[in-house]
Amino acid sequence: MSRFSLYSTAAEVSEFRRCNEKSRGKILTMQSMNPVVRAIENAVLGPTVEKAGGIERELRRGIKKQFDEVIRANIGDAHAVGQQPITFLRQVVALCTYPDLLDNPSFPNDAKSRAMRILQSCGGKSLGSYSASQGVSCILEDVAQYIIRRDGGIPADPDNIYLTTGASDGIISILKILVSGEGQSRTGFMIPIPQFPLYSAAISELDATQVNYYLDEENCWAVDVKELRRALYKGREYCNPKVLCVINPGNPTGQVHSRRCIEEVIHFAFEEGLFLLADEVYQDNIYPGNCKFHSFKKVLYEMGPEYSSNVELASFHSASKGFVSECGYRGGYMEVLNLQADVKAQLIKMLSVRLCPPLLGQAAMDVVVNPPKPEEESHQQFMREKEAVLSSLALKAKLTEELLNQVPGIQCNPLQGAMYAFPRILIPDKARQQAEDLQVAPDMFYCMKLLKETGVCVVPGSGFGQKEGTYHFRMTILPAEDKLKTLLQKVKDFHIKFLAEYS
Amino acid sequence: MSRFSLYSTAAEVSEFRRCNEKSRGKILTMQSMNPVVRAIENAVLGPTVEKAGGIERELRRGIKKQFDEVIRANIGDAHAVGQQPITFLRQVVALCTYPDLLDNPSFPNDAKSRAMRILQSCGGKSLGSYSASQGVSCILEDVAQYIIRRDGGIPADPDNIYLTTGASDGIISILKILVSGEGQSRTGFMIPIPQFPLYSAAISELDATQVNYYLDEENCWAVDVKELRRALYKGREYCNPKVLCVINPGNPTGQVHSRRCIEEVIHFAFEEGLFLLADEVYQDNIYPGNCKFHSFKKVLYEMGPEYSSNVELASFHSASKGFVSECGYRGGYMEVLNLQADVKAQLIKMLSVRLCPPLLGQAAMDVVVNPPKPEEESHQQFMREKEAVLSSLALKAKLTEELLNQVPGIQCNPLQGAMYAFPRILIPDKARQQAEDLQVAPDMFYCMKLLKETGVCVVPGSGFGQKEGTYHFRMTILPAEDKLKTLLQKVKDFHIKFLAEYS
Repeated sequence: MSRFSLYSTAAEVSEFRRCNEKSRGKILTMQSMNPVVRAIENAVLGPTVEKAGGIERELRRGIKKQFDEVIRANIGDAHAVGQQPITFLRQVVALCTYPDLLDNPSFPNDAKSRAMRILQSCGGKSLGSYSASQGVSCILEDVAQYIIRRDGGIPADPDNIYLTTGASDGIISILKILVSGEGQSRTGFMIPIPQFPLYSAAISELDATQVNYYLDEENCWAVDVKELRRALYKGREYCNPKVLCVINPGNPTGQVHSRRCIEEVIHFAFEEGLFLLADEVYQDNIYPGNCKFHSFKKVLYEMGPEYSSNVELASFHSASKGFVSECGYRGGYMEVLNLQADVKAQLIKMLSVRLCPPLLGQAAMDVVVNPPKPEEESHQQFMREKEAVLSSLALKAKLTEELLNQVPGIQCNPLQGAMYAFPRILIPDKARQQAEDLQVAPDMFYCMKLLKETGVCVVPGSGFGQKEGTYHFRMTILPAEDKLKTLLQKVKDFHIKFLAEYS
Repeated sequence: MSRFSLYSTAAEVSEFRRCNEKSRGKILTMQSMNPVVRAIENAVLGPTVEKAGGIERELRRGIKKQFDEVIRANIGDAHAVGQQPITFLRQVVALCTYPDLLDNPSFPNDAKSRAMRILQSCGGKSLGSYSASQGVSCILEDVAQYIIRRDGGIPADPDNIYLTTGASDGIISILKILVSGEGQSRTGFMIPIPQFPLYSAAISELDATQVNYYLDEENCWAVDVKELRRALYKGREYCNPKVLCVINPGNPTGQVHSRRCIEEVIHFAFEEGLFLLADEVYQDNIYPGNCKFHSFKKVLYEMGPEYSSNVELASFHSASKGFVSECGYRGGYMEVLNLQADVKAQLIKMLSVRLCPPLLGQAAMDVVVNPPKPEEESHQQFMREKEAVLSSLALKAKLTEELLNQVPGIQCNPLQGAMYAFPRILIPDKARQQAEDLQVAPDMFYCMKLLKETGVCVVPGSGFGQKEGTYHFRMTILPAEDKLKTLLQKVKDFHIKFLAEYS
């Protein structure tokens, strides 16, 4: 059993033992670990959130603070801050989970028929079996029908749909299959700045190259084709930009892109030969009456067959956002257009390594895309609950925008969609100097101070990216109305005090 | 909007357009895609399974075959072939999903108290919120308690536990953080041959180096330290082998490693400075009375503090196997020992990119590790259902081994654990020649012929790896007893005919 047979003398054995002893350190260390993992940053769960957890533990231990509770506005996690689940969704999932309930008269018939339909499409009629890696077949069909309805009749093929473990999983999968090349020919991903940190983290993890294009803050965070072109041509100097990502509605920026803007982006991608990624997870979160969601797919088809039969487009949706906000279910889907058949087989093979997305997340996604119909029993309650969530979000979006813009030194673009405000904040020179002395970004300094003095937990803009010399933070609009008002009042008081302190 | 501003004359514009037209091809092609994804192989969902799907579609269309149905024995998916869920597990998950049921008198109180405890530990008391990336805190505690009970009192720290999206996700995560270096210093992963193809697929995807060690088929697929040493020293010639994976009970090989064997492996890892991965997802699937599952962790601690405080060990468990077999829930956990604090923070950061494992999978895992106690209401039914599943599997393991060994030219090691047989099959020269002419592996040729002539779907040994010149297939023992007997009879008749045909 011993390796000592390789050493011929006792002296050699003892020398080996000594060396081995000396060198006994960990195998997995900061030095030896995967450097691309070390390079990942994830602001949404970064230092302010860690600190918030620490403060909460202190409060629970009875340590006195200038505030009684941490108000978390760092992550789009609606149920965690009190949003109630949509009854119909939970009924369908409970019925699928425990089919004995199909005999229970307190469950509505439309929920039962949905559950039976899903179970019929599962191996052994059980959510405990694996599905195909692409997803349960009847759910793929329901997603396709949803897309057809959403896009006014434009065809959708279930074969182009892939259910995913939340949208994140789908996005990472598509990025992964698109990466290739080394050095200057390494794949570049064009992403908006500010961006959702999943993108930068996934690009780090894949050791790919990030190509930043800046959203136009002065123009409600629009995508500007001149800026896309600048970024692309600059990117071509150091990598091979092949992919253009757009987030619509925007995260963290909350804009809803106009139809014209989307058309320009598609035209640009077509001309420049870019694969398009449309992150549309907030497609149901549209607030002002004059805003409308236009899917990239719909605009692509409206631009004619030259575009719709050529442009490669992956678009993403999720059960974690919208009005159901079932983050914990990890449900989502992607639709991928104009993928070659052999590449598609490769994508499915890659997905099959992780076997399949969770069946209960798939079931949750099914309810999102296949809600009760007007003539069905649960329709009224479903619509009432849906409207309650969406109108409350619309109200809170308006409120947040208005109150933030009342604070001197804070400027906030209209919150047209998604669940976040990304206000620009004035940080005086003296505060910037102090941050520099502490070797932290000025907005990290600001957000940490806000947290420590008020208990409000938001994420610094530097975690999402921003134009040099500008500072922001991202906050969700998810807390209950009263709590959100408290939060905004605290931000206001803090900011005024902050400006006074550092002027 | 146009890039033509870069071109000064109409002729240049038209030339650009022509070039662009000519070169309009797909961006994502077999040539341009990620080469490491192209290199992935996944036998369990490979060509025989694809063909089986095609045959099933033909049968449904009424096309006549020599058989009426495909019998799938390719994947460890128990519910898909008729195994019933454990009632208590589904009750707990249904209660967590739809808490209105907490008032329903038909649900037992112990299921209700489990569900309430889980919900108390979730953000907003909802399974629809994200959990910490490591998992729901009370479930981490339950896993730690389970490990302590399993290992006879050896301590377990919830802080070393990570809930995962099935065990696959945990395994891929640990492999990912361990990869580094280039060329000859690229991380090498030592894996058993035959192996579960998740390992080779993940190693491909991570562009890491696979270092094969062969299990000893003549000795019931034992791990032999001499062979480990041979593989390690050989591996050191072309990479940096840092990690040693052991699957116990074995997949696809079905052996249960002896305590002595595990101790030798740990000693070897300790001496050679290897990070240990123990894939223990079949720890509840142990069949003959004289076999016992020994966890790597337990043996490690029994070897004394020099080992237990030094050897880095990650071990994996799953809600997809055992007696609950809830594959679709994608629940699992890993315990990681002797991880440095700073590396641990890196691991959590990496996991946080995908936010968290599905909450319903976490809840399913909780029931596996925290079953009803003897004094609780559901205990009897739970134990009855658990025993029914495990005794049926034990019976089918015995049956499969016996019937396979009655076939001339088939040799099968004892099925001590897991859910598979991996018999060695004699393939005559003439058949090997024919396979070579068709450019397929001899056992792929065999399995395809078996499928086409009998409807039995198994996976060729070449997908798992095997000693050169030997041939095997993997079949599950999951089909119901009658169907399994039919399957084995079909294999027998086919094999005898095959030998006659090619002799």
